Amino acid sequence: MTVANSSPRSPWCGPRPTEVLPETLDQLDAWFRAANYLSVGQIYLLDNPLLRVPLRREHTKPRLLGHWGTTPGLNFIWAHLNRIILERDTETIFIAGPGHGGPAVVASAYLDGTYSETYGDIDKTEDGIRKLFRQFSFPGGIPSHAAPETPGSIHEGGELGYSLSHAYGAAFDNPNLLVATVVGDGEAETGPLATAWHSNKFIDPERDGVVLPILHLNGYKIANPTVLARIPEEELCDLMRGHGHTPYVVSGGFDSEDPRAVHERMAATLDDIVDHIAQIKAAAANGTLKGRPAWPMLILRTPKGWTGPQIVDGNPVEDNWRSHQVPLADVRDTEEHLQQLNDWMASYRPEEIFDASGAPLAITTALAPRGDHRMSANPVTNGGLIRRPLRLPDFRDYAVDVPSPGETTSSATGALGEWLRDVIRDNPDNFRIFGADVTASNRLSAVFDVTNKQWDADYLPIDADNHLARAGRVMEMLSEHQCQGWLEGYLLTGRHGIFNSYEAFIHIVDSMFNQHAKWLEGANSIPWRRPVSSLNYLLSSHVWRQDHNGASHQDPGFLDLVMNKKPDVVRVYLPCDANTLLSTYDHCLRSVDKINVVVAGKHPENNWLSMPEAIEHCVRGIGLFDWAGTEVVGEEPDVVLACAGDVPTLETLAATQILRERIPELRVRVVNVIDLMRLHSESEHPHGLSDAEYDALFTIDKPVIFAHHGYPWLIHRLTYKRHGHANLHVRGYKDEGTTTTPFDMVMLNDLDRYHLVIDVLERVPGLMSRHAAFWQEMHDTRLRARQYTREHGDDMPEVAEWSWKSA
Amino acid sequence: MTVANSSPRSPWCGPRPTEVLPETLDQLDAWFRAANYLSVGQIYLLDNPLLRVPLRREHTKPRLLGHWGTTPGLNFIWAHLNRIILERDTETIFIAGPGHGGPAVVASAYLDGTYSETYGDIDKTEDGIRKLFRQFSFPGGIPSHAAPETPGSIHEGGELGYSLSHAYGAAFDNPNLLVATVVGDGEAETGPLATAWHSNKFIDPERDGVVLPILHLNGYKIANPTVLARIPEEELCDLMRGHGHTPYVVSGGFDSEDPRAVHERMAATLDDIVDHIAQIKAAAANGTLKGRPAWPMLILRTPKGWTGPQIVDGNPVEDNWRSHQVPLADVRDTEEHLQQLNDWMASYRPEEIFDASGAPLAITTALAPRGDHRMSANPVTNGGLIRRPLRLPDFRDYAVDVPSPGETTSSATGALGEWLRDVIRDNPDNFRIFGADVTASNRLSAVFDVTNKQWDADYLPIDADNHLARAGRVMEMLSEHQCQGWLEGYLLTGRHGIFNSYEAFIHIVDSMFNQHAKWLEGANSIPWRRPVSSLNYLLSSHVWRQDHNGASHQDPGFLDLVMNKKPDVVRVYLPCDANTLLSTYDHCLRSVDKINVVVAGKHPENNWLSMPEAIEHCVRGIGLFDWAGTEVVGEEPDVVLACAGDVPTLETLAATQILRERIPELRVRVVNVIDLMRLHSESEHPHGLSDAEYDALFTIDKPVIFAHHGYPWLIHRLTYKRHGHANLHVRGYKDEGTTTTPFDMVMLNDLDRYHLVIDVLERVPGLMSRHAAFWQEMHDTRLRARQYTREHGDDMPEVAEWSWKSA
Repeated sequence: MTVANSSPRSPWCGPRPTEVLPETLDQLDAWFRAANYLSVGQIYLLDNPLLRVPLRREHTKPRLLGHWGTTPGLNFIWAHLNRIILERDTETIFIAGPGHGGPAVVASAYLDGTYSETYGDIDKTEDGIRKLFRQFSFPGGIPSHAAPETPGSIHEGGELGYSLSHAYGAAFDNPNLLVATVVGDGEAETGPLATAWHSNKFIDPERDGVVLPILHLNGYKIANPTVLARIPEEELCDLMRGHGHTPYVVSGGFDSEDPRAVHERMAATLDDIVDHIAQIKAAAANGTLKGRPAWPMLILRTPKGWTGPQIVDGNPVEDNWRSHQVPLADVRDTEEHLQQLNDWMASYRPEEIFDASGAPLAITTALAPRGDHRMSANPVTNGGLIRRPLRLPDFRDYAVDVPSPGETTSSATGALGEWLRDVIRDNPDNFRIFGADVTASNRLSAVFDVTNKQWDADYLPIDADNHLARAGRVMEMLSEHQCQGWLEGYLLTGRHGIFNSYEAFIHIVDSMFNQHAKWLEGANSIPWRRPVSSLNYLLSSHVWRQDHNGASHQDPGFLDLVMNKKPDVVRVYLPCDANTLLSTYDHCLRSVDKINVVVAGKHPENNWLSMPEAIEHCVRGIGLFDWAGTEVVGEEPDVVLACAGDVPTLETLAATQILRERIPELRVRVVNVIDLMRLHSESEHPHGLSDAEYDALFTIDKPVIFAHHGYPWLIHRLTYKRHGHANLHVRGYKDEGTTTTPFDMVMLNDLDRYHLVIDVLERVPGLMSRHAAFWQEMHDTRLRARQYTREHGDDMPEVAEWSWKSA
Repeated sequence: MTVANSSPRSPWCGPRPTEVLPETLDQLDAWFRAANYLSVGQIYLLDNPLLRVPLRREHTKPRLLGHWGTTPGLNFIWAHLNRIILERDTETIFIAGPGHGGPAVVASAYLDGTYSETYGDIDKTEDGIRKLFRQFSFPGGIPSHAAPETPGSIHEGGELGYSLSHAYGAAFDNPNLLVATVVGDGEAETGPLATAWHSNKFIDPERDGVVLPILHLNGYKIANPTVLARIPEEELCDLMRGHGHTPYVVSGGFDSEDPRAVHERMAATLDDIVDHIAQIKAAAANGTLKGRPAWPMLILRTPKGWTGPQIVDGNPVEDNWRSHQVPLADVRDTEEHLQQLNDWMASYRPEEIFDASGAPLAITTALAPRGDHRMSANPVTNGGLIRRPLRLPDFRDYAVDVPSPGETTSSATGALGEWLRDVIRDNPDNFRIFGADVTASNRLSAVFDVTNKQWDADYLPIDADNHLARAGRVMEMLSEHQCQGWLEGYLLTGRHGIFNSYEAFIHIVDSMFNQHAKWLEGANSIPWRRPVSSLNYLLSSHVWRQDHNGASHQDPGFLDLVMNKKPDVVRVYLPCDANTLLSTYDHCLRSVDKINVVVAGKHPENNWLSMPEAIEHCVRGIGLFDWAGTEVVGEEPDVVLACAGDVPTLETLAATQILRERIPELRVRVVNVIDLMRLHSESEHPHGLSDAEYDALFTIDKPVIFAHHGYPWLIHRLTYKRHGHANLHVRGYKDEGTTTTPFDMVMLNDLDRYHLVIDVLERVPGLMSRHAAFWQEMHDTRLRARQYTREHGDDMPEVAEWSWKSA
């Protein structure tokens, strides 16, 4: 095996260490026992942490909350990665797919010293261990998962499926990083994880880091065996080869095998694996790498609940699903369980792990790496520490020309694409765009002037016009789960990015959005977690312009989901045109610790605001379109037409124009909303308008016809406490759609200009009696529009060719 | 290859047909050309359907909406499956993963005659073809996907990823059914599809049908190559072997290869595959099958847009992503495109497909199966036709004993489990329970008295207590996507089932819920689609009792998502105890064409209602707990305490009891809500209360304190038009949670009894001045509860041991 030389810092190219020495095995085993001891203690003990006296009932917790089953496997892997780091100076982070093995990652962070540095009162004394034990899964303490509170974690893993996606996200643009990723065999059954294996076709061996998947087969889930543990090993190796990996296998610990024997095999295999990785990286560095490498992965088979109780109440527990949570459930109620717990903890020989004061003995932590090389302390896992703000080109330079409202048209996302092109140009190593095959469809193609789609699967001659390359800033795989997971991993390790999606299909990652929002909610209250870049969604091909793809592609409900999360982490923006989109996105790419959802159209639509106007409007987030209304300064309007989103804005302005021409004496106010959070009460959201501000815009007693991009009740939910809510009438998407024309879509949902006019006529007192014929005409026009569409398969010219006329 | 004999109807055991004859190849090719012709015509033409004159601009559609790229592959496969059905009498259905290849499935249904039988005006004449073409993707016509409107479809496929899951769902309990399933290579990148391959570990070779996955590599998505088309074939075959399949490969049509040559290879390979299937089925039937069979699957590689234009505007189109939608985009605007379209359609030689009247020639439809054996007409795909109602044991016999309110406690889901056990017993072949490893955790274990978890991966001796068997009514894989997809497929083919999930993790299938709701919305308006069983969710381990698993497991927001769908398809039930859950679920298992969401606790909680009371309450869906309130008949109460969900009901009743003891003169009314839709306006939902009914329950001017299971704003959204809405104050989950105790969870969200009392004191006029000390005491009690929990790690005894005292 020829390996090139490189800098001593590089983990990839060092010579293979000598054989694993017996004292190293002693150190591995000491760490393993210590971590297991500390894990069991966290799950069970309130006191007597060093087992100085036989355990008594009151030493144990009244509510036993934690997961033992996966924990020893995590501890085992962590110990061995420590050795690799120490011997090779590898920059390594650890992702615990089975994040509910929280006791393991906390124990490891405690042993390597990070925990005490982070939380000073949990020091390396008996009292520190007592606190460490007590806080776990305890009210006012720490959660049972690898949560934001856990040093070294970027992955909580309560909802399973995303460990590999997060891992690849962390590896992008971190060429010297090894992301050791434990994939639980339960997690491996999820869809997101199942396709995440293919991420290796999207990694650049030269410029990105390395993900080492460790498929941990402990055989059982909550109450069932796992699929991958129950197929023949050769079939499983086929599967991994089919995923493009070189599988390595370590199995051990069954039938009471001495862990030392397993340590020996694991250490040797990990050396082979890291040698293999070094060989690939060296070849990539010196340009001799041919094709896509078959990256190593490890299949590790150890018993669930390894080293725990074998039998409890006559039932098998080790190597069984019964060890999933707490193997001994009744330690407070039965002497037998209490005694078993005592014996179990004693079996780790705490007296050989800790000294009299409770500090770990030298052998226990001999394998702990130093400083930032500790997996718990690697700054990559606290991304805000190393985050560099983007160098953002001045978005005003990308303004579309708007001599007067509506005079020009642009594709909003097309305009954004030109700015994003230069964002990419100016930030070549810490900004990426993620999307499920929609960069071109959502009209961001300008970015391909300066970059490519990263791709490491096979190439064909035809790919010259596919914008594919081994290195590129655009990540496209037809899996919203991967896009979201990659981006989360990328952001949490200190970089920046966008998830560009079709609006309807963002629901595919609803649950991932939830989990990321929960992570941010947690992380934002932890002082040592530094701010990370916001997760920015760009939702285009939105509900109103999926006329061609039909009902399955029409759903604006993601906004409702987003609004359920805490106000300090979520933002929703509905820019009305190209310049407002540019201004909004500049803001989003500067923000931290948020999830920004921006919905924007891709088709050429009217531009309403010049850039100075757009900036002013976006800063306010909501405001009057006084150039569109017919109100008289100093007087209240007769009616307010409000709108949020590009298509609702268009229909509202068209309705305004009709009203201006047909009922010139009617005083119409037009309010446009960019920042949906402005509608919230001041007390509910930091962006919320005060009641006085709200009343000044919407009046307290005039009819308000609100044309909304999404489901109408979202607006009601935001405004039900506002004055005049009884006068608020909202139009929006009400799940009426099919394959049809753009104007038919708005008609199907009563959001069209004619219906908005009808709404005004019916709601402004006195209008109906004077304008009954006009009302009838609007109804007839709708019927005519419908008829025309059904006959011609297109929108009638007066709609399709409509243009705004200023007053 | 030895194959046992069987009945002539059995598709599995017939002898291998003779070699594929030349005339069969002619017939295959005729069908292929005809279906391609009809597909192109649907995408492009308004008129001149038989190309009787050269195409003119006005013969084409003004808006070209459809997907050509995947279509010829679907047509090719359909033709060959026809041959298999005809020669072997196979009962076969077709699932088009790339459902946007709608033109193909519609063309096929037209050719086999089903379409004209279903839609009489689309007959087998030139005029019928004209209508067929015109309606496609046309306003007032049919969608561009394999939608509910498409005979033979149970899978729309607009959102990709679920074809294999649907296929396995259709195959369960259909031992003679072959489910031919085309998996697009784009779709294959999604997570749900990637793990769906493992469904073959959950199929019973004897009692279930056969899924034949056909992985169609046409190489490109919207604008990118696909991953699986760009890995070496041996790697792909490894992947399929790793998934437990025997891969067969057919490749052809590249570089202008004559389709006849590809027909020949495809026919021979399909014969091999069906022989292989027959062999497995025969072995399963006669008990000689050893272990899990490596079911065949087909890798079919043909060019995207096969037989379409090679080059358009100088760019390659066939075998390129440019053929994804409409290869010729400007047929109305450029002569060149129009001519190319003319040549393209003429290349299929319509004069050799149709006779002068427009009817297909004999050779064109020679391979069409007869009657119900046509894939478009198989009654399995219109499941309501063959659906048998469940034999439901009388749920009243499973009532828990409730001598007086709150006197006994039960696990609600535990009680339900006993009834479900007997539902399974009495319906051994058309009812299944699906769940991601939570049947036991959600306390439905009683079902294992009569059934097992279906499992066809490896067995170990220890599995004696795992309830695993090759045949079983419980389907558990750690993938909510599979559970949902399997169940959808099972229901749409005429059976019954439940999806049993943790509440938080049901968000994983938000988008699948959306798509199924859209399917039902569409199907319910199509007369020939017969009613199918409702999709029933049982959400347990809910937000309020995930104290032990922490924030990642806490999210009641699925209800908000559900409420976005049309009122005629969604229902949400929040039973307050065991008997109401039993009554609710009996209703759900009898209902059709709905999605029923039921949230219920699994921990032992107070029983409030005897079965007769529960039935009466569930029939109303909302009602007074007059035994709990302190109002005087004939007088209005001072305050209404409303509640929905088991934990909110408990806290509300506890608050009521405190108020009764401490302010006996206060007139408190208790309203409990089971059916959330009752809160809707009558005009919005069929279950909505009239305003008069609502007012009678909630009053029009008294304070209402509403303790809700989910996010509080859902209640506001439902009631904002109601009288007295300004007096409605809702408590619910507001995203505050962690690993803690049950009572701490409600306290964190201000839903606890003490806070509800505080709400009453602050909102009933005059109370505060008289009861300031009591108010302070409630505050102090909360602090004390908090303090106790943080000290002891458990809830304080007065809460943990609380019991209801009747007045």
